[in-house]
Amino acid sequence: MNDVARLAGVSIKTVSRVVNDEPGVHPATAERVLSAIEQLGFRRNLGARNLRRGSSTGTLGLVLEDVANPFYSLLTRAVEKVARAHGRQVLTGSSDEDPTRERELALEFCSRRVDGLLVVPAGTQHGYLVPEMRAGTPVVFLDRPAGDVVADTVLVDNLGGTAAAVRHLVSFGHRRIAFLGDAPDIFTAGERLRGFREGCVTAGLQFDEDLVVMGPHDERTVAAALHAVESRPDPATAVVTGNNRITVYAVRALAGRSRRPALVGFDDFELADLLKPPVSVVAHDVSVLGRVAAELLFARLDGDTAPPRRVVLPVGLLARGSGEVAPA
Amino acid sequence: MNDVARLAGVSIKTVSRVVNDEPGVHPATAERVLSAIEQLGFRRNLGARNLRRGSSTGTLGLVLEDVANPFYSLLTRAVEKVARAHGRQVLTGSSDEDPTRERELALEFCSRRVDGLLVVPAGTQHGYLVPEMRAGTPVVFLDRPAGDVVADTVLVDNLGGTAAAVRHLVSFGHRRIAFLGDAPDIFTAGERLRGFREGCVTAGLQFDEDLVVMGPHDERTVAAALHAVESRPDPATAVVTGNNRITVYAVRALAGRSRRPALVGFDDFELADLLKPPVSVVAHDVSVLGRVAAELLFARLDGDTAPPRRVVLPVGLLARGSGEVAPA
Repeated sequence: MNDVARLAGVSIKTVSRVVNDEPGVHPATAERVLSAIEQLGFRRNLGARNLRRGSSTGTLGLVLEDVANPFYSLLTRAVEKVARAHGRQVLTGSSDEDPTRERELALEFCSRRVDGLLVVPAGTQHGYLVPEMRAGTPVVFLDRPAGDVVADTVLVDNLGGTAAAVRHLVSFGHRRIAFLGDAPDIFTAGERLRGFREGCVTAGLQFDEDLVVMGPHDERTVAAALHAVESRPDPATAVVTGNNRITVYAVRALAGRSRRPALVGFDDFELADLLKPPVSVVAHDVSVLGRVAAELLFARLDGDTAPPRRVVLPVGLLARGSGEVAPA
Repeated sequence: MNDVARLAGVSIKTVSRVVNDEPGVHPATAERVLSAIEQLGFRRNLGARNLRRGSSTGTLGLVLEDVANPFYSLLTRAVEKVARAHGRQVLTGSSDEDPTRERELALEFCSRRVDGLLVVPAGTQHGYLVPEMRAGTPVVFLDRPAGDVVADTVLVDNLGGTAAAVRHLVSFGHRRIAFLGDAPDIFTAGERLRGFREGCVTAGLQFDEDLVVMGPHDERTVAAALHAVESRPDPATAVVTGNNRITVYAVRALAGRSRRPALVGFDDFELADLLKPPVSVVAHDVSVLGRVAAELLFARLDGDTAPPRRVVLPVGLLARGSGEVAPA
């Protein structure tokens, strides 16, 4: 700062005024200070940039569960696209479903003074974000709502999706339908289970806890869950899988078997239509989820002060074959 | 800054000295200034953080082609993991194979003063990074080398991979083998074509330009390329596809056909083993590519001043069935 002052031929106080965007500096003088900062190689200094862009750092923070999951990489790409159209860049971080890690990431992003935050929450307590939100950082939750703060939220119709999956399977004669879902403390898993239960009740089926397995998360545990629901005295003849990863593991576990339960998965995934049998899914456009959430964030950055919004995006059933099988 | 000075009971000059890490400030005074900064809510200000961490902003920049491509999302995750272990976060951006966009992203990241840069280059001119590299920002190129600067680079054995694919197909009797590759100005595409050509020559096949199609990039153009090489007077009986996207499009184009060419793809992809026929691929661990590149970057940040390294990671052929078909 001394060098800047010397080069610009002004006092340190003047430099500090310019850097802090305080009044009382002649525009020509401010320009001279900025040139000096540039000349001294601080052109690329974040502070100097912020100076010109108001308080924007030009970045958004995106906290998701795992960028290696195709669901989240499509989401990231959609957010990136909207951000780019608004001249922003995206910081991403994977929480691994760990609330502590989610909090660390979100606060780290805030400490980098992101212009806004998009969060796929792992936890259910988001009071830690209230100071940031009060300080003017817009936060949009996506895929899952915040636990204990009122904030903009973009979800998909989880409940309607699993209810539709059950209807589909019932229409092919199934009355013993299992649900393999994510860990029960994950919002989407709970909602999808609720939709599954409502679907069963609406169809006049008896809801059977024994056909519900929550939390299998890899090839081994999904195979074990399938085995469990198929070895009941009154076994499942059809299965609803609660997310794209569980569906892929189930497909893997069932590969090569001559007799398989009917299957409908939640979330579409690449090559689902080319498997034998092609996998029927409850589908929604992940890109739309990312886009709508990012656009909501930019609306807030542009001064939209309406009360927090909750957007629920529709889902649809893609019947490809794996569900269209009568009970064995 | 005035407020900080007032609260800390020091001059603006002292605050500026502390902020700029200049000598001549008593530690207790510096501590007082830092506390004042914190108290005034600048705790989360990047500048104040940098102050404590030396010149680190705690971020890495990762420029890749498209984060929605599973290849790059696995890569991103691997980089994220190493970065996290070193207390850094990752800024990502997709260049869409556009050199201008690559340059914009890389320079934007530098302007945010990332601690280091990982680049999957879209272009072949990287002189624009020389000032950043001279100024001490380590840059590691991955998957593809820099065009015109000497820098740390992590690649996979592209040449060896396609040569192995050709050997595999020749061993099942194929002598008319086609290559469907990425745009020819992409380094990996060129290398893979070179390996393909060498594989043909080594096997005593006549290399036939008419069986090479470079640049198909979606379902329609890949289907057209397949059609072209299969409708030659002396048609292709086997196909090597040059990346995971082209392979998936080819699988799609061939689905439902009773007579198919033998197929070996470059890059593994999810569910390849569950397709009918299971798809044989030249595989390498994308996570290793990301990890090795990120570790190289951190070695540089830790003071490793050895000459630039070029690491070439091995690939292997996973024979699953689609290549093990005799010519029709």
